[in-house]
Amino acid sequence: MDAPVSGLAPVFSIENEAGRGAAVIVCEHASNHFAPEWGDLGTTAKTRKSHAAFDPGALDLARALARQLDAPLISGGLSRLIHDLDRPPHAPTAMPIVSQVHKIPGNRELTTTDRLRRVRQIYLPFHAALSALLAERLALGMPTALLTVHSFDPVYFGLHHNVELRVLHDADPTLARGLAKAATGFSTRLNEPSGTWIEGSHTLARHATPLHLRHAMLELRSDLLDKDLPGIAARLAPLLSGAIGAA
Amino acid sequence: MDAPVSGLAPVFSIENEAGRGAAVIVCEHASNHFAPEWGDLGTTAKTRKSHAAFDPGALDLARALARQLDAPLISGGLSRLIHDLDRPPHAPTAMPIVSQVHKIPGNRELTTTDRLRRVRQIYLPFHAALSALLAERLALGMPTALLTVHSFDPVYFGLHHNVELRVLHDADPTLARGLAKAATGFSTRLNEPSGTWIEGSHTLARHATPLHLRHAMLELRSDLLDKDLPGIAARLAPLLSGAIGAA
Repeated sequence: MDAPVSGLAPVFSIENEAGRGAAVIVCEHASNHFAPEWGDLGTTAKTRKSHAAFDPGALDLARALARQLDAPLISGGLSRLIHDLDRPPHAPTAMPIVSQVHKIPGNRELTTTDRLRRVRQIYLPFHAALSALLAERLALGMPTALLTVHSFDPVYFGLHHNVELRVLHDADPTLARGLAKAATGFSTRLNEPSGTWIEGSHTLARHATPLHLRHAMLELRSDLLDKDLPGIAARLAPLLSGAIGAA
Repeated sequence: MDAPVSGLAPVFSIENEAGRGAAVIVCEHASNHFAPEWGDLGTTAKTRKSHAAFDPGALDLARALARQLDAPLISGGLSRLIHDLDRPPHAPTAMPIVSQVHKIPGNRELTTTDRLRRVRQIYLPFHAALSALLAERLALGMPTALLTVHSFDPVYFGLHHNVELRVLHDADPTLARGLAKAATGFSTRLNEPSGTWIEGSHTLARHATPLHLRHAMLELRSDLLDKDLPGIAARLAPLLSGAIGAA
């Protein structure tokens, strides 16, 4: 799969495109890369390493799950601060001025040309590629659930989270409920967003619901991934397989 | 806008792309054209002129409304019998074997290669173009409602319809309800599909709902369009403007 290239980084990548498993995995916030043409948006090094810029650990987890489920994986190649792939272009959080405590000066005075360029070069190619991946599997009659893989910070606006796994869904709760019920080994919450997480998943709304695909968004606490990502993946993969099979 | 070309016909066309009105108009079933590379699918001339192949009058109505609302218009350039643009690729009605009383022999034994080719050459480019049209308007901050324009046959499975205008919606009923309420000059039904119309509009589900756009699908009885299309358009346009403004 050829992805458009921004600077030296692909805007997105597809791995294991021909995977025969019954899921497609998406990792929108995989990367904290700022390609030269976008610059670092005036952010500090601290911001660029933080959850504001990407979901630490999410790409490695998504890759491990894709291997175990033999699923295609599509992941973003640039920081979400340039254009958040899980937000529509007109959402204030698509090109945020502030993300939690982090300021993004380079997003402060965007012209319409700036916005259009990001939409055309980042948002549209990613979603067109995911759309093609799904449509082609469906045309071939392949069973396909849509899983999105995220991580969340144990500390959010100064508060510590004890939750380890969040599972969220769009219109059809079947897969998310099945997974949340089965995930007894994790401290799990179903559809319990963090304080400011009110928009839902654009990826699920845009790709899963209109195609009637079973779906779930997974969010793992990132300190758990730091400690033992292979262990988390090994525990999650059979739960996902089971929930997909039952859904 | 360059559309991919199938034979001599564009797979889709965009007119008035820079329209400044507060709507985008879609006409999925605009054409009964069968480009050489697809052939006529073994259909009879009667089938190719019927509602099975397209929505007679819908394109001209959509054009008249687009002019009056200064709206961009995207329309399909090939018969829906090759790939119905208002259906996902895995819907049985996307490449139907039978449509009402009409047999479509050329859809009977499609290989996976045939299906993939139609998805890649027809379904995906159309939806990618509509997606780009909407995303770019949203990035520019332009108010955008999504209207899809269809026609229906006064005779359906042998029964005559007295209804003149059907208005349907996906998740957000606001615009459709407003329009149905205002359309007192027409015999109007809200969300009252015909007997087999059970899938909803894929276009609305795929483009309007994930972007939180106000939306409606309009279906006009085609004998009314035959008789006085300009008159219907002139009556509908202000109703649409009013409903969009109020929604």
